[in-house]
Amino acid sequence: MKRILLIGIGAGDPDHITVQAIKALHRVDVFFLLDKGPAKEGLVDLRRMLCERFISGRSYRFVTADSPEWSRSGPDYGAAVDGLNQDKQAIFERLIREEMLEGETGGVLIWGDPSLYDSSIRIMERLAAGTLGIEYEVFPGISSLQALTARHKTTLNRIAKSVEITTGRRLAAAYPPDADSVAVMLDSEFVAKRYADRDLEIYWGAYIGTADEILIAGKLAEVADRIDAVRQQARQEKGWIMDSYLLKQPDK
Amino acid sequence: MKRILLIGIGAGDPDHITVQAIKALHRVDVFFLLDKGPAKEGLVDLRRMLCERFISGRSYRFVTADSPEWSRSGPDYGAAVDGLNQDKQAIFERLIREEMLEGETGGVLIWGDPSLYDSSIRIMERLAAGTLGIEYEVFPGISSLQALTARHKTTLNRIAKSVEITTGRRLAAAYPPDADSVAVMLDSEFVAKRYADRDLEIYWGAYIGTADEILIAGKLAEVADRIDAVRQQARQEKGWIMDSYLLKQPDK
Repeated sequence: MKRILLIGIGAGDPDHITVQAIKALHRVDVFFLLDKGPAKEGLVDLRRMLCERFISGRSYRFVTADSPEWSRSGPDYGAAVDGLNQDKQAIFERLIREEMLEGETGGVLIWGDPSLYDSSIRIMERLAAGTLGIEYEVFPGISSLQALTARHKTTLNRIAKSVEITTGRRLAAAYPPDADSVAVMLDSEFVAKRYADRDLEIYWGAYIGTADEILIAGKLAEVADRIDAVRQQARQEKGWIMDSYLLKQPDK
Repeated sequence: MKRILLIGIGAGDPDHITVQAIKALHRVDVFFLLDKGPAKEGLVDLRRMLCERFISGRSYRFVTADSPEWSRSGPDYGAAVDGLNQDKQAIFERLIREEMLEGETGGVLIWGDPSLYDSSIRIMERLAAGTLGIEYEVFPGISSLQALTARHKTTLNRIAKSVEITTGRRLAAAYPPDADSVAVMLDSEFVAKRYADRDLEIYWGAYIGTADEILIAGKLAEVADRIDAVRQQARQEKGWIMDSYLLKQPDK
């Protein structure tokens, strides 16, 4: 039997890691690192740093692989993601077959929380149902939305109201008609600026929990242009951006 | 100046605590414990145990206070919660005035994540805006929904879809018309059973991360009655229940 641990490592600050996740790190023989694009080097380095900082008295190894190429811009986004996940699944299948011994434990370090907009659980579910003979476990992590709200010292929900967590792509299609608060992830274009005529407050953040952290909050109408400019400049300077935001109704 | 740290401590498993939160614990001179009802003793004890387990080389003290009484059953739930929060605010104001010295740091340990259905941030925001002369910081924690999905090894969202986080009270009023996945907290009556005629999958859990953890998943129509019976029995035996669940559309 081979065993895979999917370990949430939080949203950028290494200290987001939980004690439970640190204990899981200590069970891992081989860490699989899949990344691509301009953020790749930084992200892989941060994962290695996490292992160095938090694992003691145990030897482990890294196996890296290129994450498959894909395009966000096709007509059927869902199918594109599904195709990407199938490619990722094939890579994980190969890594598990070729890079792990029977009885060993593999680890996948996941930014944020494995339950939100991450394909690892789906991939492992499929692999575990196949002929590979693996078991897997999941460890939660601080998501970027929780790091965002903590840094802004605000809540996701208003009193007794709901929160919708959605993507930039979905927000571009329509503003959620029944949501009270709206938390947006995976928005490469800062779609919120299209809704600047609405009476909304925004809590925006990029690179949260890192030395490059940027936070902007205020009336959406008043700060949308500034956020747009700041995030374009940051992306240009750094080569990549990781940001998220929360849109809330004003309380009065 | 007095300083208050609002520290998320996760959803029941002491090991949910983050390294960041442990560092925050080490800055605290006085911990404020507010609880009430049948879960009170267990919850207060668990907070004390967390401090004992994770704080070393620093002395600290506890101050306990009864959480104010309130009724969930009145006609205006929002106003009732608001009234409760005003009472809590008055208690915190007194504790900060009378139980902290100038320059000291107070700590509030919050179940789950301070951003989700918790009043501490709102209360501190108001107190910090007043004449009390305090500053406060917020530290995220693993929410019960993240613990729930990790234990069930499932995701909150389906691929590229949205998630609505809501309350049992809101779900009783109407099923969210536009939500794909629906995550429900604060549901004392297991409202989901009213929607058992819908084609939904449910992932339910109680006392997650503790020795009493119960997990049930399946087609809502098939497991709703069992969940209802199990949670009623558990609540009767233990005197209280902490549970949450996720409703997902089937993938095919």
